[in-house]
Amino acid sequence: MHYELYYWSGIQGRGEFIRLALEDAGATYTDMAREHGDAVLQPFLDGTHAGLAPFAPPFLKTGRLVIAQVGAILDHLGPALALVPQTASGRHQALQLQLTIADLVAEVHDTHHPIAASAYYEDQRDAAKARAKAMRGERLPKFLAYFEGVLQAHGGRHPLREHSYVDLSLFQLLSGLDYMFPQRMQVLWPTLPLLHALKARVAVRPNVAAYLESERRLAFNTQGIFRHYPELDGDR
Amino acid sequence: MHYELYYWSGIQGRGEFIRLALEDAGATYTDMAREHGDAVLQPFLDGTHAGLAPFAPPFLKTGRLVIAQVGAILDHLGPALALVPQTASGRHQALQLQLTIADLVAEVHDTHHPIAASAYYEDQRDAAKARAKAMRGERLPKFLAYFEGVLQAHGGRHPLREHSYVDLSLFQLLSGLDYMFPQRMQVLWPTLPLLHALKARVAVRPNVAAYLESERRLAFNTQGIFRHYPELDGDR
Repeated sequence: MHYELYYWSGIQGRGEFIRLALEDAGATYTDMAREHGDAVLQPFLDGTHAGLAPFAPPFLKTGRLVIAQVGAILDHLGPALALVPQTASGRHQALQLQLTIADLVAEVHDTHHPIAASAYYEDQRDAAKARAKAMRGERLPKFLAYFEGVLQAHGGRHPLREHSYVDLSLFQLLSGLDYMFPQRMQVLWPTLPLLHALKARVAVRPNVAAYLESERRLAFNTQGIFRHYPELDGDR
Repeated sequence: MHYELYYWSGIQGRGEFIRLALEDAGATYTDMAREHGDAVLQPFLDGTHAGLAPFAPPFLKTGRLVIAQVGAILDHLGPALALVPQTASGRHQALQLQLTIADLVAEVHDTHHPIAASAYYEDQRDAAKARAKAMRGERLPKFLAYFEGVLQAHGGRHPLREHSYVDLSLFQLLSGLDYMFPQRMQVLWPTLPLLHALKARVAVRPNVAAYLESERRLAFNTQGIFRHYPELDGDR
């Protein structure tokens, strides 16, 4: 099976959750916008391409099927890439955890853009500072303690007792948080030993390690979802 | 199959997407917090109940399985309640659309709480006014035009060519927006004839109509996700 991934070419963004699954599984895929330019996304977003139109990237094309939304794409890929438990309940648990990761990712985005995604960060910096304080003090500890607790309840190594796309997505989430909130994460990490070990284990999986070393892995930057603005970070 | 739905007793909130599916299908369920008080949610949220802990309500218990996250719950209920196409691709398309609805619902929530979910609305009203302007002017038209386009591309009556939980969720979304942004929706409705007709059709489905008339349907209020604050509304 050959996959076509459609996502903006300049950022990791939400596309990275799909890339990591494809890379970890050694799947054959083309990162369409990086190979052919961002214009290849437009017919899908305009609804002129066959299939159900996506509201936004990322979306995946496989044969005639086009699927958008990270959670739906990973639910589709999971069985094919052996990245999800084989039972129906295990598949739903993976989806539940992925959607909870997606909730935090959306909150992370709105931390630097609390007023309007279409406006410049610089024009909403004061509101961003106020929201970042609540993110660092309340939301981040609450979400991360939840995922730490899920690991603890399932043997410590994997949120679902076996390797799945959720492990990969947690790796990406934690990597992004380390980039965006280095001071805050330095304080939180000692309370999150299982997540810390999971992040380290995922990074040395052979296909993941090779990917992270390759040119295919973009660096975090201040155009993506996780953005490092020093004024939004702090030790509490 | 008997279902137990767990959601805060005082608001429609995200629980309403699940209620509508259960009600439309005539499923047998207990709305646990409304029958026994909000305290029944706590052991699940504390992680002391068996099963994968939810990060937040709503969650559904059926036999020993506990599932959280609206999208995952509806993906689980869809086949059992005959509220999703039977093909794998149809199921993924329903999930994609549901997750896009969920994205808008999250943005709607953060419109009245752009800084911190834990703080009073009154303490973030200025930021809320600024965000509401972007919501009314940019995000709402973009999301609603997307869903109108999906209807248009699939024959006009249903986003997936047959009745599904997506129809019910669009009904709930549109009802909430009518409550929260009455002036803005009055301007937008003429551009959304297919969504308008879908909303009217869902409201008169026998089980839905009976539910909406019953005491089980809570009224919209300013504790939920969709909140009517006149200062956040406007005709553009």
